[in-house]
Parts: sequence; C-alpha cells; structure tokens
Amino acid sequence: MLDTIIYNGTLVTVNADFDILKNGWVGIKDGIIREIGVTSPDDTLPKAKNSINAGKWIILPGLVNTHTHLPMTLFRGLADDLPLSVWLNDYIFPSEKKYIEPASVRLGSLVACAEMIRSGTTTCCDGYFFEDDVASSVYSCGLRAVLGQGVIDFPAPGVPNPSENIKAAVAFAEKWQGVSPLITPSIFCHSPYTCSSETLKKSKDAASANGLLFQIHVAETQAECDQIQSAHQASPLQHLDRIGILDPDTLLVHTVWTGDEDIDIIAKHNAKISHNPSSNMKLASGIAPVVDFLDAGITVGIGTDGCASNNNLDLFQEMDLMAKLHKVKTHDPTAMNAETVLKMATLGGASAIGLDDKIGSLEVNKSADIIIIDAEKPHLVPMYNPASHIVYTVRGSDVRDVMIEGKMIMRDRILLTIDLDDILKRMIRLGKEIKT
Amino acid sequence: MLDTIIYNGTLVTVNADFDILKNGWVGIKDGIIREIGVTSPDDTLPKAKNSINAGKWIILPGLVNTHTHLPMTLFRGLADDLPLSVWLNDYIFPSEKKYIEPASVRLGSLVACAEMIRSGTTTCCDGYFFEDDVASSVYSCGLRAVLGQGVIDFPAPGVPNPSENIKAAVAFAEKWQGVSPLITPSIFCHSPYTCSSETLKKSKDAASANGLLFQIHVAETQAECDQIQSAHQASPLQHLDRIGILDPDTLLVHTVWTGDEDIDIIAKHNAKISHNPSSNMKLASGIAPVVDFLDAGITVGIGTDGCASNNNLDLFQEMDLMAKLHKVKTHDPTAMNAETVLKMATLGGASAIGLDDKIGSLEVNKSADIIIIDAEKPHLVPMYNPASHIVYTVRGSDVRDVMIEGKMIMRDRILLTIDLDDILKRMIRLGKEIKT
Repeated sequence: MLDTIIYNGTLVTVNADFDILKNGWVGIKDGIIREIGVTSPDDTLPKAKNSINAGKWIILPGLVNTHTHLPMTLFRGLADDLPLSVWLNDYIFPSEKKYIEPASVRLGSLVACAEMIRSGTTTCCDGYFFEDDVASSVYSCGLRAVLGQGVIDFPAPGVPNPSENIKAAVAFAEKWQGVSPLITPSIFCHSPYTCSSETLKKSKDAASANGLLFQIHVAETQAECDQIQSAHQASPLQHLDRIGILDPDTLLVHTVWTGDEDIDIIAKHNAKISHNPSSNMKLASGIAPVVDFLDAGITVGIGTDGCASNNNLDLFQEMDLMAKLHKVKTHDPTAMNAETVLKMATLGGASAIGLDDKIGSLEVNKSADIIIIDAEKPHLVPMYNPASHIVYTVRGSDVRDVMIEGKMIMRDRILLTIDLDDILKRMIRLGKEIKT
Repeated sequence: MLDTIIYNGTLVTVNADFDILKNGWVGIKDGIIREIGVTSPDDTLPKAKNSINAGKWIILPGLVNTHTHLPMTLFRGLADDLPLSVWLNDYIFPSEKKYIEPASVRLGSLVACAEMIRSGTTTCCDGYFFEDDVASSVYSCGLRAVLGQGVIDFPAPGVPNPSENIKAAVAFAEKWQGVSPLITPSIFCHSPYTCSSETLKKSKDAASANGLLFQIHVAETQAECDQIQSAHQASPLQHLDRIGILDPDTLLVHTVWTGDEDIDIIAKHNAKISHNPSSNMKLASGIAPVVDFLDAGITVGIGTDGCASNNNLDLFQEMDLMAKLHKVKTHDPTAMNAETVLKMATLGGASAIGLDDKIGSLEVNKSADIIIIDAEKPHLVPMYNPASHIVYTVRGSDVRDVMIEGKMIMRDRILLTIDLDDILKRMIRLGKEIKT
C-alpha cells in the first residue's frame, strides 16, 4: 500500500516532455514517487494510508533556490538603495562582525526556512559562515539543502584566521556527509576577488577530493572584472579556467559580466550557473546574458541570493521578474517563456546543484518533493495555461501544502516543523538589538 | 465622537515630510481622516464607535493603480510569450470580439476588484469598453475609481460604428458624473496610432468641456513611433503637443519611447504619466526613462495595465519590480529608492489622476482610504525600515484590512462587498467557454 496519494490536481510534471496532466495523481511510498496517473470518473485510486485532495488545483515539484545566504534574513532591509561598496562595507560587514554568531545564525536560518517553505521552495543551495548552525536549522525543518561553509581570504565570522578557512570548510563537509539524505555538504568559495589563486585551487581540490559541489560568486560586477583583469590579465572566467576551477561540479553564481569567450569556457567545462536577477538588479550589478547561456547549452538555475539584497526568498516572484527582465533586455517578448523559466526554477536548479537524479520533476523514482498551489483565488481564475499561471501570476503565498521526501512540512499553510510564533518573537527581539 | 479609530500601528503617512509615526493612530468620521496622533503608554485614545487594532504593524494609504483594463482578467494568461502584434491581433482582439459583452465585463471587473482589494489597491484608473458595466461593478465593490469609456477609430465592443465612439464616451461620463464620490468619470482615448488627429482633438475637447481626465496610451513601442513619425513627421508626444492634447488633465500611459525633447514637452504642459513597468517588460516594449521624468519634475504614477499583459494587479509587486528595473537600467543602486517608489504608488498616483486633494496620503481632511499590513510573518521580521519593507518585501497577500472612505471593505482578508465564491465559480465556468 502507498503511504500517501495526492490526487485531484493538475500535475505539472516538468518531465522531459513537460507533460501537464489534468485530474492527475501521485502515489508515494518511503519518500519516493512510485506511481503517477490520471483519473477518469470511473477509476478507483490506488490505496494509500493518507490521501491529500489537491482541490482541482496545481501539483508541482518543489522549487529549487540555487543561491542563498540564509542567515541574512537578520539584515533584510537594514540598508537598501545604497552603492554596493557602502552597503557591504558600512552595513553588512560590520553587522556580520557584530551579530553573526551561532545562535543568531540558527535563528536567521529558521526564519529563512519558514519563508522558503511558505513560498514553495523545497531545496536551497546555501553558503555562509557558521554553516554548521545553518545546517542544524535546515535539518530540523526537514528542508533539502546543499550547504557550504565559506572560504575567503579575510577574517570571517567564526574563523578569524583565514588560513584556517579551508580546514573549517572541509570539517563542516565531513561532519554532515551522510547524516541525512536531505543535507548535501558543499564548499562555498567566496569569489575570485576575495580569494587568491592558491585559495581557489586548494578549496576546489578539497571539493573534488570529497565529491562536493564547489560554489563561487563570479563576474558579478564590472569592478570585479576590472580588478581581475588588472591582477591576472584575464576575465574572471578566464582566470578560473586557467587555474583549473571549472568542471561540471562547479556552480558559478551571478555571471553577469560574461562575454562570448566566457560563455564558451563555461559551456566547454559544463560548469553550472545560478542566475540571481533580483539581487543583480537591486545592486545595479547588471543583467546576466541568460538567453545566451541557454543557447550555449549551459545549465542555469535561479537563485534569490541572500535576502539582504533582494529582499525576499520567494522564487515565484523571481520567476516572474526573470521572465520579464530577459524579454525587455533582448527586445523579444517570446524570449524566456514560461516553460523555460519554470524548468529553471525546478529541474534546471536541481541539475545546477547536482541533484537532478533525485528532484526537480514529478517522475517515478524521484523523491516526493511536492507542492500544492491553491488557485481558487481571484488572481488565479480562470487558468488557461498552468505554466504561464505559475510564472506570471502565482505567488509564494498561494502555496497551500509542501511535502519533502514524502513528509508533509506545511499543510494548509501551517508549518509542521517550525514553531513559527517562537521564531517570529525572537527575530523581532533580535532585530531591535541589531537596529540600535 | 469618531466613527472609527485605527490604532497601534506604524503610520506611514506619505505626507510632505514622509513622516513615519510609531504607535500611531488615525481617527475617522464621515469617511474623512479627522485626527492623527501618536500614543504614549499613558495616553487615552479618542473615543470612537469602532476600534481597529493594527496589531503593531503597518498602516498605509491605499495604493493607487493608474492604469487598468479591469475586464481583461477574462484573458489573463490566455496568450503569453508572444510578439505584441500576434498577442493583440490573434488572441486579444478576437477574444474581445467574441466574449466582451455587458455580463462578462461585469464579472471580469468584479474579479479584478477582488484582486485589487486583496492586494491593497483602493483606487484605480481604468479605460475599456462597456465601461458602464465596469462602473457598476466597481461601484458595487465600494472601490474608488476614475473610469473612461474607450474611444478608438475601429469598431469596438459595444460600439460597432467608430463615429459613435466619442458620443458613447461622453454619455458614459454624463451618466456617472455625481453619482458617487467614489466614481470619477473620464475619457479614455486609445492612442495616437489608433485615433486620427480629429478623433484625438474632439475627444480631448469633450474631456475639457466636462472637466474630465483624458487618458491615452502613447509612445508605447518603437513601431508606434515609426508609424507616427511617418504619418505626421513627429514623435508621438510632438504630435499630441501640436494638436493641443497636452495639459495637466492629460494622463499619458506608457511613454516608453521618449527623448529629451519629449520629456520637455510633457513637463512644459504639466501632463501626467502612468508608468507600467511589468507590461512594458513582458511585451518587450522597452523601459520608460522614469528617473529622467522625475528629474524634470513630472508627476508619475504606477499602473499594472490590463492583467492580460502583466499578469496580475498587485501593486506591491509592481513597486518592487520598478525599483529594481530602474536601478539596473541606470547602473545606479541609489536610483528609485523605496521612498520615491512608495510615493509614486500612493500620492504620485493620486496626483497623476487628479485626486491628490482627496487621497494618496494619511493626512487630516483627506479621505480615509487606508490599508493595514500584517507584518507578523517570516518574510517581514524584523522590520528596520517600513518604506523599504513595503517596496521590497511586502506583497499584496500581506494586506489584512482595507478601508475606503471610512468604510471597511476587507477585514482579516475577508471581502465584505463581494461574494467571492460566486464570482470565482462563474469565472471558472466562463474561462472554460473562452478557452475552447
């Protein structure tokens, strides 16, 4: 007998044929999707211990956020509308120095998990400091995540001596390897402008030796390109290529300033990209040439970035904004259509972080990471095209239920793994300290 | 005694000093704001028949949507990711021809009103056909609106003979003039590329003679500019200037393709602008130079456009997208800051449609058009800067209560003037007809 059956919905599978099945159902056992079907009026559904009626609305794979800094919920809206250097040097770095410690990281991460679950994200790829505490929070919420302890050539929260950074990152990965099928350790190297070639190479070697995803911010701003050009007579991507950082297990975050040659380099190595449109717009960094990436066959996922530069973690909003941004950038309303965008937020993101064998689509033998969208609302009727609806109209607040690996973690918008009242109260209290 | 007092919130007044009052309250009588104050722990609040506790969260003027085509909820998501001409000629025009009639216009407008109220919009400026039916729906919901019957040199829904268009538009205005303080008639002239100079002049004359706002789409696309240049040897704005259309009661919608000379023309006449960023991005029309408009002292409001080209009516989302769009366009993260954007969505919008003496800010003697935002949610704690929170983080679904002219029309997210179940059912049924 199945553990759970989710029925009476429009299944947006995001499989290879992008099948959309009306009156669809998904059968789940031991956290895995075992059967998918379509119900006719006379059909009897397979037996299951639990039945979840999707209320005729949308059943979708959980969304994948390919770039976060979860604890930065602590600083959401603390400093907006500022130049990147002022924002970072006068607000974010000092605040991190003062307020980032294990307890605040745990709390900030719990609040981030609550926001992600409530907006339909079931997997994130995160990099920060005190990542062990991020991992504890994420683990307790039942969210799926790829998590990397940060490496940077500066004194960092929790790691005052930069020479200890790689060791700390590897120790984090070793501690969390195999703890849970939901937690995949990784290494997060900050960027080519904050890490020497030696640091980049050593941390990539450590990632490769342990079979870990290597995350790195790269080519985010024009200033970074100028700096790398001046130091290494190369673009950031050329620099990473020359020192041997690029391979299919490298996730390149931002990649705003990338010319044709850079795109060829990324494609040649089958490196992956995390596109963060809101953050790049808000900090006025620029617009990544995502249509060109896709044309070159590069795998691209969507990320929100830390919510201090966004300022939220709602991937539905990110999909809408991204689709529109690339249409106006390319002067082509047919560019970046809803199906393309939805794939990027699900299977593309899963592929970018190395989890596409497990998640990103509703298919037999994949993990049951599933969300149900309540579309019985004025902004969601009628529904002509589910993909278009999901990208252009649905918002995070329309997500009704969230399941990860077969376990319900939100039901009727009630979080089942987080004490919401408690974390809200504590976050409000901590915010008063941070503001003063 | 006051009719209502709203207390225990952060009052974001949008007054001239942009005062933000913690522990603020608003006293209302006969639909008008009579008193505004700040409560100390020992203070007694003024007596009122009804007290509304804002729960420590945000009290804000209702948002103003300066450009809508309300009944187009009927076609939301019917045809996306298409070139403008295909979208319009192959989908929207034929669908309008077949399905736009009084009953569908009423239903589509009710659904739009429900969506607007639920996302904190208390005033809209609309132009469409069968506008009498739009007005009936809006009136029944208790929403505030400026409404214009459409004028176009083609057979239009309900007005098969174009020569009757201006007469129909004036008749609509005369019928609704003085019916309700919430309904302000207007004239909506489609555009310089769909109306002859004679039609433009006659309809503007009719508007002026009756003291009505004159709404017009202008300079939306490059193709329109080429067409007007070829026909009149002028830019669309120069053309409107030469035939005497521009004055402070003219609302120019879109104004994407405007050079320095056009901006000077708009500023000289003190004509107003409705900026529709989502629609312009989604149709790949371009990005209006809004920073230049503001630098030239032009009044700019925000509009969603019809939700078939957006695809929603959520002004919170529009604020977020607009702020980010202009930062990345101008390469300046300090451009279009949260305060500027919030003003545009409230007082700026009110000013653009000629209602700034009545609405757009929380000030004594203004109408009590007020929304309360529930910020006790994971994506809204802590709150460091209310303006930044409202623009970058709050979404329409966070609006808890809506009051228009002192009358509650949504309480705890329950609509008080609309039978939501009924309109959802009817809209789903109609959608099935439209799709097939």
